[in-house]
Amino acid sequence: MTRELIDQITNMMENIRVKKPLIHHITNYVTVNDCANIVLAIGASPIMADDIDEVETITSISSALVINIGTLNRRTIESMVAAGKRANELGIPVVLDPVGAGASGLRNETTERLLAEVKLTVLRGNMSEIRFCAGLKADTKGVEVSEADQKIGADEGSEVARDVARKFGCVVAITGATDIITDGERTIYIENGTRHMSNVTGTGCMCTSLVGSFCGAMDEATGGPLIAAAGGVLAMGLAGELAYEAAKDKGYGSFHIAIIDAASKLDSDTLGARAKIYEA
Amino acid sequence: MTRELIDQITNMMENIRVKKPLIHHITNYVTVNDCANIVLAIGASPIMADDIDEVETITSISSALVINIGTLNRRTIESMVAAGKRANELGIPVVLDPVGAGASGLRNETTERLLAEVKLTVLRGNMSEIRFCAGLKADTKGVEVSEADQKIGADEGSEVARDVARKFGCVVAITGATDIITDGERTIYIENGTRHMSNVTGTGCMCTSLVGSFCGAMDEATGGPLIAAAGGVLAMGLAGELAYEAAKDKGYGSFHIAIIDAASKLDSDTLGARAKIYEA
Amino acid sequence: MTRELIDQITNMMENIRVKKPLIHHITNYVTVNDCANIVLAIGASPIMADDIDEVETITSISSALVINIGTLNRRTIESMVAAGKRANELGIPVVLDPVGAGASGLRNETTERLLAEVKLTVLRGNMSEIRFCAGLKADTKGVEVSEADQKIGADEGSEVARDVARKFGCVVAITGATDIITDGERTIYIENGTRHMSNVTGTGCMCTSLVGSFCGAMDEATGGPLIAAAGGVLAMGLAGELAYEAAKDKGYGSFHIAIIDAASKLDSDTLGARAKIYEA
Repeated sequence: MTRELIDQITNMMENIRVKKPLIHHITNYVTVNDCANIVLAIGASPIMADDIDEVETITSISSALVINIGTLNRRTIESMVAAGKRANELGIPVVLDPVGAGASGLRNETTERLLAEVKLTVLRGNMSEIRFCAGLKADTKGVEVSEADQKIGADEGSEVARDVARKFGCVVAITGATDIITDGERTIYIENGTRHMSNVTGTGCMCTSLVGSFCGAMDEATGGPLIAAAGGVLAMGLAGELAYEAAKDKGYGSFHIAIIDAASKLDSDTLGARAKIYEA
Repeated sequence: MTRELIDQITNMMENIRVKKPLIHHITNYVTVNDCANIVLAIGASPIMADDIDEVETITSISSALVINIGTLNRRTIESMVAAGKRANELGIPVVLDPVGAGASGLRNETTERLLAEVKLTVLRGNMSEIRFCAGLKADTKGVEVSEADQKIGADEGSEVARDVARKFGCVVAITGATDIITDGERTIYIENGTRHMSNVTGTGCMCTSLVGSFCGAMDEATGGPLIAAAGGVLAMGLAGELAYEAAKDKGYGSFHIAIIDAASKLDSDTLGARAKIYEA
Repeated sequence: MTRELIDQITNMMENIRVKKPLIHHITNYVTVNDCANIVLAIGASPIMADDIDEVETITSISSALVINIGTLNRRTIESMVAAGKRANELGIPVVLDPVGAGASGLRNETTERLLAEVKLTVLRGNMSEIRFCAGLKADTKGVEVSEADQKIGADEGSEVARDVARKFGCVVAITGATDIITDGERTIYIENGTRHMSNVTGTGCMCTSLVGSFCGAMDEATGGPLIAAAGGVLAMGLAGELAYEAAKDKGYGSFHIAIIDAASKLDSDTLGARAKIYEA
């Protein structure tokens, strides 16, 4: 089963490199450069556009829409909603990263509004953010997972993920020590990556952008949203652990750059040899 | 003739390092850090400012203005126009990068408005963007050149470039496999760089920022806009190919950083030895 | 005395790594990624949020607020004031970086407004910016210190710094060849760093973010704002000089990354061996 998952993800990754799907991002200004570069590294093509007067057009020429609320503001929130609705009309996949949901009223309301008004394909966040989406107490510490939420195990976490997936009819990916990806029925676990990834800003955002890149390459042959979400999460985990091995002696700056390096070098051999992925 | 071009560009580059011209950018938030760093690397000084209440002042103390519409919005479009007009009044060179022109109504209208209301010194874009400026069918794929436009050869491309240069009375630089730089009369071709540069976000933006840096160092002794545009495009091509040679085994993250490295190390010897530039 | 300063700073730095304080930034989009990454590198946790509808909430859950006016606009200026006032109400330290004060009316008015309406803990800038805050002629060249101001010696500079510190009741840090940090009574000098740091954009902003990180870790045992400001400035100087030694042969791109590397590797041994800090 692990083998089949890896094969599906490998095929979808090859599909990205063949199709070079355009991935529309409405995202934050902190990590936007890394998001664009990791999308290019995996073989897709990024476009960042957030003005209400063009987001619907840009979404309509794209293969996926990534919404990231990391530095949301009143202006861009309207663009997120408009772009999301347009994507829904056109059947274009939408990935949401509810950065810091739980940390402020504005983030909470925006997350709730997006969940209510836009039909998501994949929702990716840390345990605190997804717990917020579940209507549970989310002890968010800024944009990072809280210490309490970090200790929640894979069993309890997958319950939360499945609930949210069923509630919103989308795939949910919770990234953490063990990543949990579920469509409410099937649940995939990934144990790649390293905890040091939280020492570089944007590893969560980059993961979401990779999920968007995989979503932009979905087709009947390669699989649907569950595989796309698992593909993005796995690619990010592998990039992170390979980068850490390569750069850990140098420091976090080199580690950061090595993540993009590793994403750009990712191939089926590496996936086959290193993926710690299973369904349970 | 190649020798003379290289000498002129070398002199202008030395002028940048002596004068350290201030280059005002109204640019996008995706690649802004790279634009600032490559301006510093070539020896100029960047300032990014986009509020309508200060852009005219900031332009007035600068040696060149770079307008890049990569993540344009209603607020910054007005700032672009106001700064451009002020630059015109003061005789300060203006460089426009119409990122993604052809991809949305907003980008199209803004490009047309800037072309109509601001007298440009240099217009730099890929073939799709410049074709849009020419009023031709531009098959823009997001912010990248389309596959069809990419196949347009240097002969047809230089016709388009010359038409646009004459229409708007500015230098036009189309970057691609062969870069084309023309003032409508003289046409310069550059064959440095590597196609892999499109795998790092912002190599087009950085090129435009280098053109702006050269424009900020123009004087009677070193040459005018045609040489400045060729200088910026050549510097970017050399930085890209040197970076690719240095970092290709590591991946795109290292390649990205090596571009800034190479720009900061660029000297007359490298220009003399590697520049593939000619007038025809 | 040097030994005592180093011990206090070392203790505060260890406190950062234990407490991992959340540092709220309202900052510019040019260097924001580096600011976030250097905050992580030193052991704190960054959150960037600038919408008026959430800044007060985000400040209230943070251990320090960093305000940086590098790419200020009408929207974010209001957020800066609101967040600053909220921080004052809650006793949360506020650090201001008046980027480019002196260069435009908007920057001048905003700096004056923040100085008038928000009680600062630390004000950090270059000599031109702090001279502007002192009401002196500031010959600001864009966002860099002017050549004239750069030549002002430590004696005259410390007079300016002390005047501003007394006027606004805060710690003032002027960074330059010799860094000057004063609360109006005690004055600390630091001679680490390298002039090459001005060749990478954001070294000033990163310095301010480190000061914010130290401020977020202050307590009775480790010291107050003067030590926090000195700690941030010293950490930045050491990161810069270590990075330059490591990467100078490669170029400015590698130097940039090596700054984050060095910040993430900074320890008490390095501080003890290399800090050039003294009180006079």
